[in-house]
Amino acid sequence: MHVLFALPDRNPDEWLPGLRAEMPDFKISVWDPAGPPSNADVALVWKPPAALFKHETGLKAVFNLGAGVDALLKMPEIPAHVQIVRLEDAGMSVQMAEYVLYALWRESRGFARYEADQAAGRWDPREGLRREQWPVGVLGLGVVGSRVAEALAAFEYPVAGWSRSPRSIDGVRTYAGMDQLPAFLARTRVLVNVLPLTPETEGILDRATLSQLLPHAHLINVGRGEHQNEDDILALLQEGRLDSVSLDVFRTEPLPAASGLWKHPRAHVTPHIAASTLREETIVQIADKIRRMARGEPLSGVVARERGY
Amino acid sequence: MHVLFALPDRNPDEWLPGLRAEMPDFKISVWDPAGPPSNADVALVWKPPAALFKHETGLKAVFNLGAGVDALLKMPEIPAHVQIVRLEDAGMSVQMAEYVLYALWRESRGFARYEADQAAGRWDPREGLRREQWPVGVLGLGVVGSRVAEALAAFEYPVAGWSRSPRSIDGVRTYAGMDQLPAFLARTRVLVNVLPLTPETEGILDRATLSQLLPHAHLINVGRGEHQNEDDILALLQEGRLDSVSLDVFRTEPLPAASGLWKHPRAHVTPHIAASTLREETIVQIADKIRRMARGEPLSGVVARERGY
Repeated sequence: MHVLFALPDRNPDEWLPGLRAEMPDFKISVWDPAGPPSNADVALVWKPPAALFKHETGLKAVFNLGAGVDALLKMPEIPAHVQIVRLEDAGMSVQMAEYVLYALWRESRGFARYEADQAAGRWDPREGLRREQWPVGVLGLGVVGSRVAEALAAFEYPVAGWSRSPRSIDGVRTYAGMDQLPAFLARTRVLVNVLPLTPETEGILDRATLSQLLPHAHLINVGRGEHQNEDDILALLQEGRLDSVSLDVFRTEPLPAASGLWKHPRAHVTPHIAASTLREETIVQIADKIRRMARGEPLSGVVARERGY
Repeated sequence: MHVLFALPDRNPDEWLPGLRAEMPDFKISVWDPAGPPSNADVALVWKPPAALFKHETGLKAVFNLGAGVDALLKMPEIPAHVQIVRLEDAGMSVQMAEYVLYALWRESRGFARYEADQAAGRWDPREGLRREQWPVGVLGLGVVGSRVAEALAAFEYPVAGWSRSPRSIDGVRTYAGMDQLPAFLARTRVLVNVLPLTPETEGILDRATLSQLLPHAHLINVGRGEHQNEDDILALLQEGRLDSVSLDVFRTEPLPAASGLWKHPRAHVTPHIAASTLREETIVQIADKIRRMARGEPLSGVVARERGY
């Protein structure tokens, strides 16, 4: 196998030693758009330029250095026979769980309130947490969503999960399909989105969906900006229908200065940092998948293009 | 058995139905300082007045509705033959783990920084988390400390724990005794205190101890205020020796308005809310202990007065 490092905005010196150490039997080279085609079998990419696929016509597969492949699937330049393989965890799910728990606890444990109390010099302990008042629902139960749901269950919150097709997770009440979405939303106060972005899920976090949550609802979105209708979310915050939102992703990134989300006191904005792929974990996972591919074995994480993830 | 509810500042109507439902065979009454002695066998207390022990001379045991018994041990009015029994968990350890992880992530995940960025309208994603840069050390490995250490390990932080006598916890490097305290501190950047308050541990969070931590250290204290030297802590913050502190407990509570901790930008003050005993869990645990006592069986949580916890 010949592996091509095709991430123009990352420093190959940080990646090649690790890749070579993990895959000593394979040739590993760096994509040179100005040079002759490398004739590589597989390419490692992240938001690749279309030129890659016109130049490197021998590719059988591309490995996406992230979980979301929505951008890749919008590229007509990728021939149909090229497999798209996504990273399945690589240290991301534990980071997502951290982000979600932090955003939940800021509200459920009152940390935001205690911070305001400190600023005002006020010592004012409130009643302890009653977990039954904080039912959390996780939209999306892939590798990341399952880990998030398990982490919430480990901290004894009532947790439910929703996914396209039925799943089973210990300690988590699961719902599946559009038919069961209303029942899932009706028992959920804190909605966590980790769905993949597909035509079916685009815009799912809108007024129609969010209005079905329990009163004093909270939204935590670590999926994609395209899942959310930001005008609806701001209006629901202003109407008091949503108590708070914690958003790591936005329709347009960086979030434009004109967005009302920047200044809303109950909107928490972070710059798409909920989970970053960790180099060491990524290299180990990719090496394993490429070795399986070289041996003709099945591998997980292959994207079903018609499904969208 | 005759059980006395002796918490003058709590509403007995919130407790008696649950206590009676859990202990239908026992007589349960409310302490009446103005009436005749009840001749009860055991009393449920939290910071009781000395008058209780002069009035109710038939008591064989007191159940403390909290983990810390340091205040009880300073009361000479409690006869030596009266057993002091503490709550061992009752929903507290999971709350402590929440508090500690939240305080850790505010720093390790940069949430405090991103909050400041939002206030300034700045979109500025930083490098992802490298867990190896955040070795956490837990002082105290009882029920609460073990749960805290396990939670930290589940989120893949390098975790060590220190306790008076040797302990073993999966995924946690453990140290024991004063001899090993320096080695424990020298590998720790984030120090979490959940020790019981005893003459040996009083004032342990002082300049001498905290100066042994790794650079850019953080302190999280959910133990007791008497563990900490607040002047030393403020000075270490100002000197840049401590990057931040998250304190839930203080020498004097409420924290006096004059304390420099209120206003320090890297001191996070909460009003002793890290863990509150949850009524349902407390009642189930106390009922179990009292039944064991009635049957003459051994019970856990009995305080060794000479040891101090």
